[in-house]
Amino acid sequence: MNIKINENFNHLAQNYLFSEIAKRVKAYTEKNPDAKIIRMGIGDVTRPLCPHVVSAMKNAVEEMGKAESFRGYPPEYGYDFLREAIAAHYASFGVTVAAGDIFVSDGAKSDCGNIVDIFGDNTIYIPDPVYPVYMDSNIMSGRTIKLIPATVENGFLPMPKADFTTGVYYLCSPNNPTGAAYSAEQLQTWVDFALDTGSVILFDAAYEAFVSDDSPRSIYAVPGAEKCAIEFASFSKTAGFTGTRCGYTVVPAALKAGDTPLQALWARRQATKFNGVSYPVQRAAEAAYSQEGLAQCMENISYYMNNAALMAELMREKGIFFTGGKNSPYVWFKCPNGMDSWSFFDKLLTEAQVVGTPGAGFGACGEGFFRLSSFNSLENTKEAVERLRGIL
Amino acid sequence: MNIKINENFNHLAQNYLFSEIAKRVKAYTEKNPDAKIIRMGIGDVTRPLCPHVVSAMKNAVEEMGKAESFRGYPPEYGYDFLREAIAAHYASFGVTVAAGDIFVSDGAKSDCGNIVDIFGDNTIYIPDPVYPVYMDSNIMSGRTIKLIPATVENGFLPMPKADFTTGVYYLCSPNNPTGAAYSAEQLQTWVDFALDTGSVILFDAAYEAFVSDDSPRSIYAVPGAEKCAIEFASFSKTAGFTGTRCGYTVVPAALKAGDTPLQALWARRQATKFNGVSYPVQRAAEAAYSQEGLAQCMENISYYMNNAALMAELMREKGIFFTGGKNSPYVWFKCPNGMDSWSFFDKLLTEAQVVGTPGAGFGACGEGFFRLSSFNSLENTKEAVERLRGIL
Repeated sequence: MNIKINENFNHLAQNYLFSEIAKRVKAYTEKNPDAKIIRMGIGDVTRPLCPHVVSAMKNAVEEMGKAESFRGYPPEYGYDFLREAIAAHYASFGVTVAAGDIFVSDGAKSDCGNIVDIFGDNTIYIPDPVYPVYMDSNIMSGRTIKLIPATVENGFLPMPKADFTTGVYYLCSPNNPTGAAYSAEQLQTWVDFALDTGSVILFDAAYEAFVSDDSPRSIYAVPGAEKCAIEFASFSKTAGFTGTRCGYTVVPAALKAGDTPLQALWARRQATKFNGVSYPVQRAAEAAYSQEGLAQCMENISYYMNNAALMAELMREKGIFFTGGKNSPYVWFKCPNGMDSWSFFDKLLTEAQVVGTPGAGFGACGEGFFRLSSFNSLENTKEAVERLRGIL
Repeated sequence: MNIKINENFNHLAQNYLFSEIAKRVKAYTEKNPDAKIIRMGIGDVTRPLCPHVVSAMKNAVEEMGKAESFRGYPPEYGYDFLREAIAAHYASFGVTVAAGDIFVSDGAKSDCGNIVDIFGDNTIYIPDPVYPVYMDSNIMSGRTIKLIPATVENGFLPMPKADFTTGVYYLCSPNNPTGAAYSAEQLQTWVDFALDTGSVILFDAAYEAFVSDDSPRSIYAVPGAEKCAIEFASFSKTAGFTGTRCGYTVVPAALKAGDTPLQALWARRQATKFNGVSYPVQRAAEAAYSQEGLAQCMENISYYMNNAALMAELMREKGIFFTGGKNSPYVWFKCPNGMDSWSFFDKLLTEAQVVGTPGAGFGACGEGFFRLSSFNSLENTKEAVERLRGIL
């Protein structure tokens, strides 16, 4: 006899994307040891924490070292000072979210994965191409998944269709990997659809700080969303917290499945399987959303967005279809001459010594597309754009 | 139509323990505003982070503020520097654990809860009284749970019985709430049983730093455990990290269910639904396990253990059955005169102005017992012991 494992793990595909990239880059550099490779495939921030955040976090660490200011277990849903700072952040762009509806966590990835715990056996609708966590966390739970194609025709912003049923819908805007951002009208259509069908939208707003036009930075900018949507957000990209770890999830009190408030389920899930976020990290996050901290963070965002604009300009110049380049640190473009994603990866690597991310790695609808990231220095970005100009 | 929720949440009992305690204390203090209440119910550390840890964590925060030393996403399983420090910690008390078998997390509670993801529909055996996370996380997954009574007869250290089947077994030693610690011989019996029946032991070693006799500090001190046991441990109680948040789980490479290595499942679970621990927190944890840091941490442990010894001495003096008082910050004792847990709670509150934790709150087998915690000042502990002496 043996104990039973979760057999759903057998249905997970091995994700070879980043290991395959590493393998090909390694093979190339071994043959070309003097090549100056520029890595534009990075989905991680590169600029340091801003001074206001560093100062606040250091002060909090000092507090932890003194008997009179030491803090033990944090509240499981986050300290009130941070929940209120997050509510104020929403208010700063005109969105009303109650502090009590905000659940602080160690990151949006954890929440995106753990949210499956509160749902039963629904049909799960996930756009393709996609952030892999949405897929894999549902496969682990044995759920039925239907993919929603994102394509050139819908501008990589798929909309509800007549045959979509009651279910759980993942939306990510501004999108990773495509950089495309829904308009208020488009999100209103999604919210109306969810309210009509009794569906729940899981809205990933991790890139909200990059929005530079009038695209909504939160689904709660749309009337009715508080009755049908959960939102994930994070300090990772806004404040460079990928290595500091803090995110949050909004589960509005008004959101119910029949008579059951989903907030009660998430609150119980977190109180049972989570013990709150490190106090110094919460103070750092609070500082990031202060007026001074946010001004410093936005300098970094502007720096990345300037990089993205340089890449977008090249695509325009060459007449290549692309999404992103604004509202997002990513530029997602059609590989030239009908090339597939991996062939273009090889061409870019061997002819321009630039590493990017093949779109096919994010799903079947990503085939023939390619992602470049602006998380890099201006100098590297300029050089990469010049090299790209030569081969596009 | 509505989406389906996880109906298993309906089977969760509301945990009224700490809210009921708060309610009764509030009612008493409103009637007796001058009463000097001493709180001995706390399961949370009270002494600040030690200087070596504070210094390391501040340095790491500074690194995050500089371009040349900034770090983005941490490795999902923990930085090698910390995994190696933890392996060295095991080695310091004679236990061999490979760094690669160690998965760093934001705390043992998260791991204890999330581990259910990797298992199928097994019978779950859980001792009573119990840390509520073991129960609730399995109820949320709809598992069949069998309680193993911990009683005066088995010294609150239940052993395998003939009718126990293949399953998942939770053991916690030194135990929360009872403070009892298994001997090496007892753990060997458990390990042999698990190997014979193809069962898996989930061993919670959160209180290992409190072991002061020859009780094992890790289940891997017992031969064969690497083939049948997962271990949870934490910096929370060892280094006062309840508010700093860092723990770890050991899933040995040798542990398999049939042909499936459980390590591969946990690695995939964590890579999908977790994004690693904050870099400054990992540097703080590394410092706690350095020679200098551990020496400072052990001063705090000794301080708490001195408090526990004072309470244990009182129980001996009064001839009251108890467990803990050594190997644990807790003293778990039989309420005098056959009183039930809550009646004794009221007596202690009203006659001695001391607040403790009713054993019945941890499970049916806790009825008639009571837990006192040593997480307090020496002064308060001495005063509480004097007051208890008057009513026991």
